[in-house]
Amino acid sequence: MSIGIIGTGSYIPGQTIKNQDFESQEFLNADGTPFKNENTIIIEKFKAITGIEERRYVEKGLNTSDIAFLASEKAIEDAKIDKETIDYIIVAHNFGDVSHGQHQSDMLPSLASRVKHHLRIKNPKCVAYDMLFGCPGWIEGVIQANAFIKSGIATNCLVIGAETLSRIVDPHDRDSMIYSDGAGAAIISQSKNQGEILSHSSATFTYDEAFFLFYGKSYSPSEATTKYIKMYGRKIYEFAVTHVPQAMKDCLDNSGVTIQEVKKILIHQANEKMDEAIVNRFYGLYNMEAPDDIMPMSIGKLGNSSVATVPTLLDLIKTGKVKNQEIHKGDVIIFASVGAGMNINAIVYKV
Amino acid sequence: MSIGIIGTGSYIPGQTIKNQDFESQEFLNADGTPFKNENTIIIEKFKAITGIEERRYVEKGLNTSDIAFLASEKAIEDAKIDKETIDYIIVAHNFGDVSHGQHQSDMLPSLASRVKHHLRIKNPKCVAYDMLFGCPGWIEGVIQANAFIKSGIATNCLVIGAETLSRIVDPHDRDSMIYSDGAGAAIISQSKNQGEILSHSSATFTYDEAFFLFYGKSYSPSEATTKYIKMYGRKIYEFAVTHVPQAMKDCLDNSGVTIQEVKKILIHQANEKMDEAIVNRFYGLYNMEAPDDIMPMSIGKLGNSSVATVPTLLDLIKTGKVKNQEIHKGDVIIFASVGAGMNINAIVYKV
Repeated sequence: MSIGIIGTGSYIPGQTIKNQDFESQEFLNADGTPFKNENTIIIEKFKAITGIEERRYVEKGLNTSDIAFLASEKAIEDAKIDKETIDYIIVAHNFGDVSHGQHQSDMLPSLASRVKHHLRIKNPKCVAYDMLFGCPGWIEGVIQANAFIKSGIATNCLVIGAETLSRIVDPHDRDSMIYSDGAGAAIISQSKNQGEILSHSSATFTYDEAFFLFYGKSYSPSEATTKYIKMYGRKIYEFAVTHVPQAMKDCLDNSGVTIQEVKKILIHQANEKMDEAIVNRFYGLYNMEAPDDIMPMSIGKLGNSSVATVPTLLDLIKTGKVKNQEIHKGDVIIFASVGAGMNINAIVYKV
Repeated sequence: MSIGIIGTGSYIPGQTIKNQDFESQEFLNADGTPFKNENTIIIEKFKAITGIEERRYVEKGLNTSDIAFLASEKAIEDAKIDKETIDYIIVAHNFGDVSHGQHQSDMLPSLASRVKHHLRIKNPKCVAYDMLFGCPGWIEGVIQANAFIKSGIATNCLVIGAETLSRIVDPHDRDSMIYSDGAGAAIISQSKNQGEILSHSSATFTYDEAFFLFYGKSYSPSEATTKYIKMYGRKIYEFAVTHVPQAMKDCLDNSGVTIQEVKKILIHQANEKMDEAIVNRFYGLYNMEAPDDIMPMSIGKLGNSSVATVPTLLDLIKTGKVKNQEIHKGDVIIFASVGAGMNINAIVYKV
């Protein structure tokens, strides 16, 4: 018996926000002072570093749990399982449902309970919970599902990553342009020839790193109390390129698979330059250069939707929606992520 | 090898709020109209049903993650383990850190990351995440820890339930008097003669029940947008007395232990009359009457602190702080909980 991903689904929100839509935004430094450069120059630099041309925002009437549900419906259909046979629904997110125009996170009931409610699943033995682990939450949810199946308490698990970062961005912070909304879902199951989790690894760095990403005040001095997503970008970059390649190597070395057999790396779509640096350093640990097309990217058109990027990217590749990128039966792929916590994780997976 | 609870700790907040402290509160009906009765009568009825005389609130400067840390320190000390050997830190909560005087939930980074940071644990392989599962969150965290240990990815897990409900109560809702703050923690480990989880069960009811507990508007028409914890008390009562006894029976029947061997039932301190009805119906399923002193209670003095009640009660009994209640080596006890989701769970445990 192996444990595999037997179905995937994603939801790409309908509102496309282009970089030029930020041209009239009042961006400020952390101390509230204006930038010396024009927004057009800020945006140009932003695009050069992150690779982001546009991002997606959900419509006003939708919340994180709604798009989690929409992605889940597709994953269940793709897996061709009876929804009543799902043992766990695990929703990875970090901010709950934040309604348009509001600032409070609503997690009562849990988003997993809401998804289960919307899916109209009756079986009470389908246990639904939410899991908070920064951007690596979806991968961590898969690792938890794997443990539940291994320990004998589950057969089918629905693992979802969903976030609406558009609801918690500070309009005066140029980092806001990074963030996006999205949802990706997968069914993890006891599998007969339908894929296999070969190894996984997770880590949480908090001694000095716990508050590299945090909830903080607006850069606009007029906004006194509301909190928004904030980050120390430089520190995160250095942290990620230092620790993620080694974590990926440890995971691969534990899998019994050689670096030559790795066909794709699906990495959290955080920032194009950072992701490239991570993958280059990862291959550097094997004294190799990163092969062309090893790292499919969606960040250019979809931005950084936190927990949603990896399952969404997987689903888009599987459904032929990423140019020049395919995954075939038997391919070995690595999932990897890094984010708030600071958390890192990776899975070596045989399709 | 068995899996047991090898250490416990709790934090009882310092502010005691007595029932008479609510005498001048402006309680309203859900439609914003005033009650016909005086507050003294409302409070008298409240006490007769819930058993609550007083409850605890945290000091202004403390948040949920702070008291989670304070309970954890004691649990680690009690377990006599090196904190660097902890593989997982699981924090069950439902609202994140809500600072005094604010309404936003702050979960960035996760509360588990904050606890790990405060504990000054260096080992990055200690994975820290938050779990949202309503009031049954701490028991569910223990069930997850059990699965991780069984599946071979953990040896020691720190599982914490912490909540500061005082920060999210509507002062115009008489149900506010139920809610309290608190934190309880336990170390779950591979154990040699230090206790054993014999069986466990979990369920999530969402088809009709998902929104029995929810985040909703104040009963005061002047407060337009802020959300507070709200519940349909009558529906929850009926749900709990219908489903919890059977869930406990299923769990006990799976454990191989007879009802006669059960020495204590540690049930979520939700409401004294409801808890009594659950335990009476549970024994009724075996055509028995509930034995005297089978159900230690802390709600009278500590109120309902959600995820914190069960681990706090266990710690208080272990440290001799609950009158006429003791737990001895070899005793079989049942942990049970019910809450938002709607979620139910139970563990049959041999001390």
